[in-house]
Amino acid sequence: MITPTVTSIKERIEAGNEEAVRRLLSADPVLVDVAPASEVIEGLGERMILHSGPPIEWERMCGAQRGSVLGLVLFEGWAESITEAETLLASGGVQLEPNHAHHGVGPMAGTTSPSLPVWVVENRSFGNRAYCRPTDAAQQFGDYSDKALAGIRNWRDVRAPAVGAALRQMRGLPLKPLLAKALQMGDELHNRPNALSALLGNALAPALVEAAVEHDALLATLYWLRYDEFLGLAVAMAAAKSAAEPAEGVDYSTLVTAMARNGTDFGIRVSGLPGEWFTAPSPAVDGLYLPGYSAKDAGLDMGDSAITETVGWGGFVLGGAPGILALVGGTPEEAMRISRDMREITLAASPDYRIPAFGFDGAAVGIDIRKVVKSGVLPTIDTAIAHREPGHPKIGGGIVRAPLQCFTEALREFGHHYEAER
Amino acid sequence: MITPTVTSIKERIEAGNEEAVRRLLSADPVLVDVAPASEVIEGLGERMILHSGPPIEWERMCGAQRGSVLGLVLFEGWAESITEAETLLASGGVQLEPNHAHHGVGPMAGTTSPSLPVWVVENRSFGNRAYCRPTDAAQQFGDYSDKALAGIRNWRDVRAPAVGAALRQMRGLPLKPLLAKALQMGDELHNRPNALSALLGNALAPALVEAAVEHDALLATLYWLRYDEFLGLAVAMAAAKSAAEPAEGVDYSTLVTAMARNGTDFGIRVSGLPGEWFTAPSPAVDGLYLPGYSAKDAGLDMGDSAITETVGWGGFVLGGAPGILALVGGTPEEAMRISRDMREITLAASPDYRIPAFGFDGAAVGIDIRKVVKSGVLPTIDTAIAHREPGHPKIGGGIVRAPLQCFTEALREFGHHYEAER
Repeated sequence: MITPTVTSIKERIEAGNEEAVRRLLSADPVLVDVAPASEVIEGLGERMILHSGPPIEWERMCGAQRGSVLGLVLFEGWAESITEAETLLASGGVQLEPNHAHHGVGPMAGTTSPSLPVWVVENRSFGNRAYCRPTDAAQQFGDYSDKALAGIRNWRDVRAPAVGAALRQMRGLPLKPLLAKALQMGDELHNRPNALSALLGNALAPALVEAAVEHDALLATLYWLRYDEFLGLAVAMAAAKSAAEPAEGVDYSTLVTAMARNGTDFGIRVSGLPGEWFTAPSPAVDGLYLPGYSAKDAGLDMGDSAITETVGWGGFVLGGAPGILALVGGTPEEAMRISRDMREITLAASPDYRIPAFGFDGAAVGIDIRKVVKSGVLPTIDTAIAHREPGHPKIGGGIVRAPLQCFTEALREFGHHYEAER
Repeated sequence: MITPTVTSIKERIEAGNEEAVRRLLSADPVLVDVAPASEVIEGLGERMILHSGPPIEWERMCGAQRGSVLGLVLFEGWAESITEAETLLASGGVQLEPNHAHHGVGPMAGTTSPSLPVWVVENRSFGNRAYCRPTDAAQQFGDYSDKALAGIRNWRDVRAPAVGAALRQMRGLPLKPLLAKALQMGDELHNRPNALSALLGNALAPALVEAAVEHDALLATLYWLRYDEFLGLAVAMAAAKSAAEPAEGVDYSTLVTAMARNGTDFGIRVSGLPGEWFTAPSPAVDGLYLPGYSAKDAGLDMGDSAITETVGWGGFVLGGAPGILALVGGTPEEAMRISRDMREITLAASPDYRIPAFGFDGAAVGIDIRKVVKSGVLPTIDTAIAHREPGHPKIGGGIVRAPLQCFTEALREFGHHYEAER
């Protein structure tokens, strides 16, 4: 037998992907804290707001993301009115950077400012931490009304300190069992995190009591845990980010380590090309609208929440979560077909996240840019819909496909990069 | 047009079934209390133990049900040892009656004694109340060990008073929204009540705090609500019984109003033939066993829990709850087929309990003895498996089909009864 002295690029890619997928699948996400962003996010400037998606300047931001940034400028007290806030932003008085540049993610506009408490997930297999701002149906969608801001103030002042105390009391809540259970309870952990939210409520309740949270805050938090079916999304996102990050930077790996959208651009990141974004215009979402809204009001695809699809949830397990169809449209058969299609573009089946409707097969996980380009099958993402203009709450939900252009450009750059290296 | 002066029997049956199904579907179950059986169950004698299934005497009881009765005799303090308890029972010193004779139901052996607290559900559309003893994985299966009895003592002394106080504080918890949600979260509300259990935990937590439940009892109850995935079954059963009972006693109705098994006999009740049981030998369960047990250890089908199938849950919505297959075996395709088959023997589709995996069609509800006999399609029931001998905890779970003989005998008697009347 002749051993080649130089391995082929294909072999190197396979070895790289094996390592990257191994890292992705060996994640052990533990929910460890809720704390103000300024206390836990490294490199977060005093006058900085993080946002979803690839990097973008104020002028190019979509309406909903601008609305959400404006809301946080008021929330932080950096301006007294929307007009003042707009002037401040137009003059460059607030730094804008992606969550993904700070080990973080954020749903929809994804805006994260220093005093906003974030969920903190530690991946105990690797020691890295990831962050996600809370979900809400208003402020993260660009609504900067008093009511929307009152929601995040209540989070900051009442619920976040209570939940943070409970999590510290528990010395962290291992998420893998909860995520696995939720996927067996009709969640896809993106647009339908209902079961995860319920299970988090069950897990946090005794810890809130043990942490001696003051009576009124305890009650307010328990009622929130009872009624907010979306609260689990931010936890799933932070877990996903904590799992994806150790898989970044593996030489020769064609694994996608992030998909993120800012409502203007859709961007992906690739393990073997760390730090780079490959972008295309954000697509429109095909979905259902809340009463009073229609497609003409809709902004384009937005949010870091596609980190859930990046780790094999969301659109990748749609067939196991038919309850979501009430929110995004379609039939159970279409949902199953979409999930089956995702197997064509992925590198593995999850050993941990098994889907009853698939006969307990593992979720399809690990998007390979080569497979996307070769098959033309695009990653399917469940998502919510924000308004095209600032100042509105959530207007709908639907399904969107990642633009092929991101993958072709990434593959082209991958070729250049690794050819040059040889 | 000639109007017949005498309506045909077929027309009378259709009118009867329309009324019986209308009553069944208009149920509004509200969880109102947890209280000792002696305080809420009418006609419960001081030395009486209720059991699952049709009436049966001590001598004919199966091993698991005898074990469970023996356990409650010790629990009530009517005997000091199993030997003493056996002597007492053999001498007729304890009255034995079915739960169904007292507006109640009980899982597995279904044993209910005076000081055992029961869940109380009020059907607010009709004002009737139904009862169900708590689920556990030991005592209700016939285990009379100290550990098994400690479980129900803790329920009696700690958790039941706490939950009762919370429910009274809430002035009742409407169950329809929770049951509907749970069915959209992969529950079939019989062998898989996981989502209902989680949602009950979420709903009870703030009420436990508001009811000022003492710290240690509060914590113990919150931990139980976090970890006991089966606790919701008893609530679903009481809700189902509260819904089924008003549909009893409608002249000419061929609707099944109860299916229940005592591990020796399987019995059904029919709306137009109130108070009568139509029985056949309990069938064996086709299922999966917990480690250390096999089919040779198994008792026959047991429990009042088939009240859930009677109202369109359990085996009737198996296809929407593929997570249960880990417990009972089979494939998602088989589960969907079983659920589709159930449409052949039912009178309606539920307007309230819609199943995402069926494209949000309502659950098949209202078993018609005529349709069962004509089609030969037997009601499919998800169930747990108890040991054939007294003294064991749960040994497995599986699927069973109601015996045809119950339906043919009921239909024969129906013919006699209504022919005689004409």
